[in-house]
Amino acid sequence: MTGMSPLWLAASPLLLASGSATRRDMLAAAGIPVEVVKPQIDERAVEAPLLAAGSPSDAVAAALACAKALAVSQDHPGRLVLGADQTLTCDGEAFHKPATLAQAADQIAALAGRTHELHSAFVLARDGAPLVEGVAIARLTMRPLSADIIARYLDCAGPAALSSVGGYQIEGLGAQLFDRIEGDHFTILGLPLLAVFVALRDLDVLAR
Amino acid sequence: MTGMSPLWLAASPLLLASGSATRRDMLAAAGIPVEVVKPQIDERAVEAPLLAAGSPSDAVAAALACAKALAVSQDHPGRLVLGADQTLTCDGEAFHKPATLAQAADQIAALAGRTHELHSAFVLARDGAPLVEGVAIARLTMRPLSADIIARYLDCAGPAALSSVGGYQIEGLGAQLFDRIEGDHFTILGLPLLAVFVALRDLDVLAR
Repeated sequence: MTGMSPLWLAASPLLLASGSATRRDMLAAAGIPVEVVKPQIDERAVEAPLLAAGSPSDAVAAALACAKALAVSQDHPGRLVLGADQTLTCDGEAFHKPATLAQAADQIAALAGRTHELHSAFVLARDGAPLVEGVAIARLTMRPLSADIIARYLDCAGPAALSSVGGYQIEGLGAQLFDRIEGDHFTILGLPLLAVFVALRDLDVLAR
Repeated sequence: MTGMSPLWLAASPLLLASGSATRRDMLAAAGIPVEVVKPQIDERAVEAPLLAAGSPSDAVAAALACAKALAVSQDHPGRLVLGADQTLTCDGEAFHKPATLAQAADQIAALAGRTHELHSAFVLARDGAPLVEGVAIARLTMRPLSADIIARYLDCAGPAALSSVGGYQIEGLGAQLFDRIEGDHFTILGLPLLAVFVALRDLDVLAR
Protein backbone atom coordinates (compact mmCIF):
# COMPACT_ATOMS: atom_id res chain seq x y z
CA MET A 1 0.00 0.00 0.00
CA THR A 2 2.79 2.42 0.87
CA GLY A 3 5.88 0.43 0.00
CA MET A 4 7.17 0.78 3.57
CA SER A 5 6.35 -2.76 4.63
CA PRO A 6 3.91 -5.37 3.36
CA LEU A 7 2.53 -5.60 6.91
CA TRP A 8 2.32 -1.89 7.80
CA LEU A 9 -0.83 -0.36 6.30
CA ALA A 10 -0.74 3.29 7.40
CA ALA A 11 0.33 6.06 5.02
CA SER A 12 3.06 7.31 7.35
CA PRO A 13 5.42 5.76 9.90
CA LEU A 14 4.50 5.41 13.56
CA LEU A 15 5.77 8.35 15.63
CA LEU A 16 7.65 6.99 18.63
CA ALA A 17 7.44 9.42 21.56
CA SER A 18 10.46 8.00 23.38
CA GLY A 19 14.18 8.64 23.17
CA SER A 20 14.96 4.97 23.81
CA ALA A 21 17.08 3.44 21.04
CA THR A 22 16.08 0.01 22.38
CA ARG A 23 12.38 0.70 21.72
CA ARG A 24 13.12 2.17 18.29
CA ASP A 25 15.25 -0.83 17.30
CA MET A 26 12.69 -3.33 18.64
CA LEU A 27 9.89 -1.79 16.56
CA ALA A 28 12.04 -1.47 13.45
CA ALA A 29 13.25 -5.08 13.74
CA ALA A 30 9.63 -6.22 14.02
CA GLY A 31 8.73 -4.48 10.75
CA ILE A 32 7.11 -1.30 12.09
CA PRO A 33 8.32 1.85 10.32
CA VAL A 34 9.09 4.42 13.05
CA GLU A 35 10.14 8.04 13.36
CA VAL A 36 11.42 9.16 16.75
CA VAL A 37 10.32 12.43 18.36
CA LYS A 38 11.69 12.75 21.86
CA PRO A 39 8.96 14.17 24.11
CA GLN A 40 9.84 17.29 26.10
CA ILE A 41 8.26 16.46 29.43
CA ASP A 42 9.47 16.53 33.02
CA GLU A 43 8.97 12.87 33.95
CA ARG A 44 9.63 13.41 37.64
CA ALA A 45 6.99 16.19 37.72
CA VAL A 46 4.43 13.90 36.04
CA GLU A 47 4.98 11.05 38.47
CA ALA A 48 5.45 13.07 41.69
CA PRO A 49 1.71 13.46 42.51
CA LEU A 50 1.06 9.82 41.62
CA LEU A 51 3.86 8.59 43.86
CA ALA A 52 2.67 10.94 46.63
CA ALA A 53 -0.83 9.47 46.30
CA GLY A 54 0.57 5.92 46.50
CA SER A 55 -0.45 5.00 42.94
CA PRO A 56 0.62 1.52 41.85
CA SER A 57 3.61 1.37 39.53
CA ASP A 58 1.61 0.13 36.53
CA ALA A 59 -0.51 3.29 36.78
CA VAL A 60 2.64 5.43 37.05
CA ALA A 61 4.10 3.80 33.93
CA ALA A 62 0.82 4.30 32.04
CA ALA A 63 0.61 7.96 33.09
CA LEU A 64 4.17 8.61 31.90
CA ALA A 65 3.54 6.80 28.60
CA CYS A 66 0.40 8.91 28.15
CA ALA A 67 2.16 12.19 28.94
CA LYS A 68 4.86 11.38 26.36
CA ALA A 69 2.35 10.38 23.67
CA LEU A 70 0.18 13.46 24.19
CA ALA A 71 3.14 15.87 24.25
CA VAL A 72 4.28 14.63 20.83
CA SER A 73 0.76 14.16 19.42
CA GLN A 74 -0.17 17.80 20.04
CA ASP A 75 2.64 18.92 17.72
CA HIS A 76 1.92 16.33 15.00
CA PRO A 77 -1.76 16.46 13.99
CA GLY A 78 -3.12 13.43 12.18
CA ARG A 79 -0.16 11.20 13.10
CA LEU A 80 -0.40 8.01 15.14
CA VAL A 81 1.90 8.41 18.17
CA LEU A 82 3.24 5.71 20.50
CA GLY A 83 4.30 6.74 24.01
CA ALA A 84 6.04 4.25 26.29
CA ASP A 85 7.46 4.06 29.78
CA GLN A 86 8.84 1.49 32.18
CA THR A 87 8.90 1.50 35.98
CA LEU A 88 10.92 -0.72 38.30
CA THR A 89 9.73 -1.51 41.80
CA CYS A 90 11.08 -3.84 44.45
CA ASP A 91 8.87 -4.52 47.46
CA GLY A 92 6.94 -1.35 46.67
CA GLU A 93 10.00 0.89 46.35
CA ALA A 94 10.41 2.71 43.01
CA PHE A 95 13.84 2.78 41.37
CA HIS A 96 15.08 5.20 38.70
CA LYS A 97 17.95 5.24 36.24
CA PRO A 98 21.19 5.57 38.22
CA ALA A 99 23.10 8.80 37.49
CA THR A 100 26.55 7.49 38.40
CA LEU A 101 28.33 4.13 38.56
CA ALA A 102 28.37 4.47 42.36
CA GLN A 103 24.57 4.84 42.35
CA ALA A 104 24.32 1.88 39.97
CA ALA A 105 26.37 -0.21 42.42
CA ASP A 106 24.10 0.76 45.33
CA GLN A 107 21.01 -0.02 43.28
CA ILE A 108 22.23 -3.44 42.15
CA ALA A 109 23.22 -4.22 45.76
CA ALA A 110 19.68 -3.28 46.83
CA LEU A 111 18.14 -5.57 44.18
CA ALA A 112 20.52 -8.52 44.68
CA GLY A 113 18.92 -11.67 46.08
CA ARG A 114 15.43 -10.23 45.57
CA THR A 115 12.66 -10.24 42.95
CA HIS A 116 11.76 -6.92 41.33
CA GLU A 117 8.96 -5.97 38.97
CA LEU A 118 9.15 -4.14 35.68
CA HIS A 119 5.95 -2.52 34.39
CA SER A 120 6.10 -1.53 30.73
CA ALA A 121 3.28 0.69 29.52
CA PHE A 122 2.29 2.08 26.14
CA VAL A 123 -0.28 4.61 24.95
CA LEU A 124 -1.30 5.16 21.33
CA ALA A 125 -2.58 8.70 20.68
CA ARG A 126 -3.77 10.80 17.76
CA ASP A 127 -4.59 14.52 17.57
CA GLY A 128 -3.84 15.08 21.23
CA ALA A 129 -6.13 12.31 22.52
CA PRO A 130 -5.23 8.82 23.82
CA LEU A 131 -6.75 5.96 21.75
CA VAL A 132 -5.64 2.86 23.65
CA GLU A 133 -3.27 1.93 26.46
CA GLY A 134 -1.75 -1.23 27.82
CA VAL A 135 0.63 -2.37 30.56
CA ALA A 136 2.56 -5.63 30.91
CA ILE A 137 4.62 -6.92 33.81
CA ALA A 138 7.86 -8.89 34.12
CA ARG A 139 9.40 -10.28 37.31
CA LEU A 140 13.15 -10.70 37.60
CA THR A 141 15.09 -12.32 40.40
CA MET A 142 18.67 -11.21 40.88
CA ARG A 143 21.05 -13.70 42.46
CA PRO A 144 22.86 -12.78 45.67
CA LEU A 145 25.87 -10.64 44.68
CA SER A 146 28.97 -9.65 46.62
CA ALA A 147 30.30 -6.07 46.48
CA ASP A 148 33.28 -7.50 44.58
CA ILE A 149 31.18 -9.07 41.84
CA ILE A 150 29.09 -5.91 41.48
CA ALA A 151 32.29 -3.87 41.07
CA ARG A 152 33.62 -6.32 38.46
CA TYR A 153 30.29 -6.24 36.62
CA LEU A 154 30.25 -2.43 36.51
CA ASP A 155 33.93 -2.32 35.42
CA CYS A 156 32.95 -4.51 32.52
CA ALA A 157 29.56 -2.96 31.68
CA GLY A 158 30.77 0.64 31.98
CA PRO A 159 28.45 3.59 31.23
CA ALA A 160 25.91 1.27 29.55
CA ALA A 161 24.85 0.39 33.09
CA LEU A 162 23.47 3.92 33.43
CA SER A 163 21.16 3.66 30.42
CA SER A 164 18.64 1.33 32.04
CA VAL A 165 16.44 1.74 35.09
CA GLY A 166 17.88 -1.26 36.92
CA GLY A 167 21.53 -0.58 36.15
CA TYR A 168 21.68 -3.73 34.01
CA GLN A 169 21.13 -4.77 30.41
CA ILE A 170 19.63 -8.22 30.37
CA GLU A 171 20.55 -8.69 26.70
CA GLY A 172 24.21 -8.20 27.59
CA LEU A 173 26.45 -8.72 30.58
CA GLY A 174 23.48 -8.09 32.90
CA ALA A 175 22.24 -11.63 32.22
CA GLN A 176 24.95 -12.85 34.62
CA LEU A 177 23.19 -11.06 37.49
CA PHE A 178 20.01 -13.12 37.31
CA ASP A 179 18.66 -16.35 38.72
CA ARG A 180 15.19 -16.22 37.24
CA ILE A 181 13.28 -14.27 34.58
CA GLU A 182 9.49 -14.25 34.19
CA GLY A 183 7.85 -12.20 31.48
CA ASP A 184 8.55 -11.66 27.80
CA HIS A 185 11.73 -10.04 26.55
CA PHE A 186 9.94 -7.09 24.95
CA THR A 187 8.35 -6.13 28.26
CA ILE A 188 11.74 -6.42 29.99
CA LEU A 189 13.30 -4.15 27.33
CA GLY A 190 10.60 -1.51 27.94
CA LEU A 191 7.76 -2.01 25.46
CA PRO A 192 4.97 -4.66 25.63
CA LEU A 193 5.30 -5.30 21.90
CA LEU A 194 2.68 -8.06 21.57
CA ALA A 195 0.03 -5.81 23.18
CA VAL A 196 1.10 -2.91 20.94
CA PHE A 197 0.62 -5.17 17.89
CA VAL A 198 -2.91 -6.10 19.03
CA ALA A 199 -3.75 -2.40 19.35
CA LEU A 200 -2.22 -1.56 15.95
CA ARG A 201 -4.20 -4.38 14.29
CA ASP A 202 -7.41 -3.15 15.97
CA LEU A 203 -6.66 0.31 14.52
CA ASP A 204 -6.22 -1.28 11.05
CA VAL A 205 -2.69 0.03 10.59
CA LEU A 206 -1.09 -3.40 10.91
CA ALA A 207 -2.06 -6.42 8.76
CA ARG A 208 -4.22 -8.95 10.57
CA MET B 1 43.22 -13.31 35.70
CA THR B 2 43.49 -13.78 31.96
CA GLY B 3 42.60 -10.34 30.71
CA MET B 4 39.72 -11.73 28.65
CA SER B 5 36.98 -10.61 31.00
CA PRO B 6 36.89 -9.70 34.70
CA LEU B 7 34.13 -12.29 35.13
CA TRP B 8 35.55 -15.17 33.08
CA LEU B 9 38.13 -17.08 35.11
CA ALA B 10 39.31 -19.87 32.80
CA ALA B 11 42.63 -19.70 30.97
CA SER B 12 41.03 -20.17 27.56
CA PRO B 13 37.71 -19.28 25.94
CA LEU B 14 34.70 -21.57 26.04
CA LEU B 15 34.50 -23.81 22.94
CA LEU B 16 31.00 -23.54 21.49
CA ALA B 17 30.05 -26.75 19.67
CA SER B 18 27.29 -25.17 17.61
CA GLY B 19 27.23 -23.33 14.30
CA SER B 20 24.49 -20.96 15.52
CA ALA B 21 25.52 -17.31 15.27
CA THR B 22 22.67 -16.48 17.65
CA ARG B 23 24.17 -18.65 20.41
CA ARG B 24 27.66 -17.28 19.77
CA ASP B 25 26.41 -13.67 19.91
CA MET B 26 24.34 -14.32 23.04
CA LEU B 27 27.32 -15.71 24.94
CA ALA B 28 29.68 -12.99 23.72
CA ALA B 29 27.19 -10.23 24.64
CA ALA B 30 26.90 -11.74 28.13
CA GLY B 31 30.67 -11.54 28.64
CA ILE B 32 31.66 -15.15 27.91
CA PRO B 33 34.69 -15.47 25.61
CA VAL B 34 33.82 -18.08 22.98
CA GLU B 35 35.44 -19.89 20.08
CA VAL B 36 33.15 -21.71 17.69
CA VAL B 37 33.88 -25.23 16.43
CA LYS B 38 31.03 -26.55 14.36
CA PRO B 39 30.44 -30.22 15.28
CA GLN B 40 30.46 -32.72 12.42
CA ILE B 41 27.56 -34.92 13.41
CA ASP B 42 24.49 -36.22 11.60
CA GLU B 43 21.74 -34.77 13.78
CA ARG B 44 18.97 -36.73 12.13
CA ALA B 45 20.90 -39.98 12.73
CA VAL B 46 21.37 -39.10 16.43
CA GLU B 47 17.70 -38.37 17.00
CA ALA B 48 16.18 -41.12 14.79
CA PRO B 49 16.34 -43.94 17.40
CA LEU B 50 15.09 -41.56 20.11
CA LEU B 51 12.14 -40.44 18.03
CA ALA B 52 11.43 -44.08 17.09
CA ALA B 53 11.42 -44.96 20.79
CA GLY B 54 9.03 -42.09 21.55
CA SER B 55 11.54 -40.17 23.67
CA PRO B 56 10.26 -36.82 24.96
CA SER B 57 11.57 -33.76 23.13
CA ASP B 58 13.60 -32.50 26.11
CA ALA B 59 15.53 -35.79 26.04
CA VAL B 60 16.05 -35.47 22.28
CA ALA B 61 17.40 -31.92 22.67
CA ALA B 62 19.73 -33.07 25.47
CA ALA B 63 20.99 -36.02 23.41
CA LEU B 64 21.75 -33.75 20.44
CA ALA B 65 23.49 -31.19 22.68
CA CYS B 66 25.56 -34.02 24.17
CA ALA B 67 26.49 -35.49 20.78
CA LYS B 68 27.68 -32.04 19.62
CA ALA B 69 29.69 -31.39 22.79
CA LEU B 70 31.38 -34.81 22.74
CA ALA B 71 32.22 -34.65 19.02
CA VAL B 72 34.10 -31.38 19.55
CA SER B 73 35.53 -32.31 22.95
CA GLN B 74 37.26 -35.42 21.58
CA ASP B 75 39.30 -33.24 19.22
CA HIS B 76 40.15 -30.57 21.84
CA PRO B 77 41.63 -32.19 24.96
CA GLY B 78 41.58 -30.09 28.11
CA ARG B 79 39.12 -27.54 26.73
CA LEU B 80 35.68 -26.82 28.21
CA VAL B 81 33.10 -27.42 25.47
CA LEU B 82 29.47 -26.27 25.33
CA GLY B 83 27.05 -28.20 23.12
CA ALA B 84 23.50 -26.94 22.58
CA ASP B 85 20.37 -27.91 20.74
CA GLN B 86 16.74 -26.87 20.50
CA THR B 87 13.68 -28.90 19.59
CA LEU B 88 10.22 -27.66 18.64
CA THR B 89 7.13 -29.75 19.24
CA CYS B 90 3.45 -28.99 18.85
CA ASP B 91 0.98 -31.47 20.33
CA GLY B 92 3.72 -34.08 20.34
CA GLU B 93 4.77 -33.58 16.71
CA ALA B 94 8.44 -32.64 16.13
CA PHE B 95 9.25 -29.84 13.68
CA HIS B 96 12.58 -29.16 11.96
CA LYS B 97 14.12 -26.21 10.15
CA PRO B 98 12.23 -25.67 6.91
CA ALA B 99 14.35 -26.18 3.79
CA THR B 100 12.32 -23.89 1.50
CA LEU B 101 9.99 -20.91 1.87
CA ALA B 102 7.11 -23.16 0.80
CA GLN B 103 7.93 -25.54 3.67
CA ALA B 104 8.20 -22.56 6.02
CA ALA B 105 4.72 -21.44 4.96
CA ASP B 106 3.28 -24.92 5.60
CA GLN B 107 4.99 -25.07 8.98
CA ILE B 108 3.75 -21.66 10.12
CA ALA B 109 0.24 -22.58 8.94
CA ALA B 110 0.48 -25.75 11.05
CA LEU B 111 1.57 -23.76 14.14
CA ALA B 112 -0.90 -20.86 13.70
CA GLY B 113 -3.55 -20.58 16.41
CA ARG B 114 -1.76 -23.17 18.57
CA THR B 115 0.78 -23.34 21.38
CA HIS B 116 4.12 -24.99 20.67
CA GLU B 117 7.01 -25.89 22.94
CA LEU B 118 10.69 -25.11 22.54
CA HIS B 119 13.15 -27.22 24.52
CA SER B 120 16.65 -25.75 24.68
CA ALA B 121 19.34 -28.07 26.02
CA PHE B 122 23.00 -27.65 26.81
CA VAL B 123 25.81 -30.02 27.77
CA LEU B 124 29.21 -28.98 29.11
CA ALA B 125 31.95 -31.51 28.36
CA ARG B 126 35.69 -31.89 28.82
CA ASP B 127 38.08 -34.55 27.49
CA GLY B 128 35.31 -36.44 25.77
CA ALA B 129 33.08 -36.75 28.85
CA PRO B 130 29.91 -34.82 29.74
CA LEU B 131 30.20 -32.77 32.98
CA VAL B 132 26.72 -31.28 33.35
CA GLU B 133 23.56 -30.88 31.30
CA GLY B 134 20.42 -28.82 31.50
CA VAL B 135 17.18 -28.24 29.59
CA ALA B 136 14.73 -25.32 29.73
CA ILE B 137 11.33 -24.93 28.12
CA ALA B 138 9.44 -22.07 26.50
CA ARG B 139 5.83 -22.08 25.30
CA LEU B 140 4.77 -19.84 22.45
CA THR B 141 1.28 -19.27 21.12
CA MET B 142 0.94 -18.18 17.52
CA ARG B 143 -2.11 -16.15 16.61
CA PRO B 144 -4.48 -17.44 13.93
CA LEU B 145 -2.95 -16.51 10.55
CA SER B 146 -4.44 -16.44 7.06
CA ALA B 147 -2.50 -17.80 4.06
CA ASP B 148 -2.26 -14.19 2.86
CA ILE B 149 -0.61 -12.92 6.03
CA ILE B 150 1.82 -15.88 6.07
CA ALA B 151 2.79 -15.08 2.46
CA ARG B 152 3.30 -11.40 3.33
CA TYR B 153 5.36 -12.33 6.38
CA LEU B 154 7.62 -14.63 4.36
CA ASP B 155 7.98 -12.03 1.57
CA CYS B 156 9.24 -9.66 4.21
CA ALA B 157 11.33 -12.09 6.30
CA GLY B 158 12.94 -13.79 3.28
CA PRO B 159 15.60 -16.50 3.71
CA ALA B 160 16.04 -15.59 7.42
CA ALA B 161 12.83 -17.58 7.96
CA LEU B 162 14.79 -20.74 7.06
CA SER B 163 17.43 -20.24 9.75
CA SER B 164 15.21 -21.11 12.69
CA VAL B 165 13.34 -24.27 13.56
CA GLY B 166 9.93 -22.59 13.63
CA GLY B 167 10.36 -20.52 10.47
CA TYR B 168 10.27 -17.33 12.55
CA GLN B 169 12.67 -15.03 14.37
CA ILE B 170 11.00 -13.76 17.49
CA GLU B 171 13.53 -10.94 17.82
CA GLY B 172 12.51 -9.64 14.39
CA LEU B 173 9.44 -9.68 12.20
CA GLY B 174 8.39 -13.01 13.73
CA ALA B 175 7.12 -11.18 16.82
CA GLN B 176 4.07 -10.18 14.77
CA LEU B 177 3.03 -13.85 14.56
CA PHE B 178 2.53 -14.30 18.30
CA ASP B 179 -0.23 -13.83 20.83
CA ARG B 180 1.62 -15.09 23.88
CA ILE B 181 5.16 -15.91 24.96
CA GLU B 182 6.09 -17.88 28.10
CA GLY B 183 9.72 -18.58 28.89
CA ASP B 184 12.86 -16.52 28.86
CA HIS B 185 14.30 -15.03 25.70
CA PHE B 186 17.54 -16.99 25.90
CA THR B 187 15.67 -20.29 25.92
CA ILE B 188 13.57 -19.14 22.95
CA LEU B 189 16.74 -18.20 21.05
CA GLY B 190 18.18 -21.68 21.66
CA LEU B 191 20.35 -21.64 24.78
CA PRO B 192 19.16 -21.67 28.43
CA LEU B 193 21.76 -19.06 29.36
CA LEU B 194 20.88 -18.67 33.06
CA ALA B 195 21.28 -22.43 33.60
CA VAL B 196 24.56 -22.39 31.67
CA PHE B 197 25.81 -19.62 33.99
CA VAL B 198 24.94 -21.67 37.08
CA ALA B 199 26.92 -24.60 35.65
CA LEU B 200 29.89 -22.39 34.73
CA ARG B 201 29.95 -20.87 38.24
CA ASP B 202 29.79 -24.38 39.77
CA LEU B 203 32.81 -25.29 37.60
CA ASP B 204 34.63 -22.18 38.90
CA VAL B 205 35.19 -20.71 35.45
CA LEU B 206 32.72 -17.87 35.94
CA ALA B 207 32.90 -15.39 38.85
CA ARG B 208 30.34 -16.04 41.58
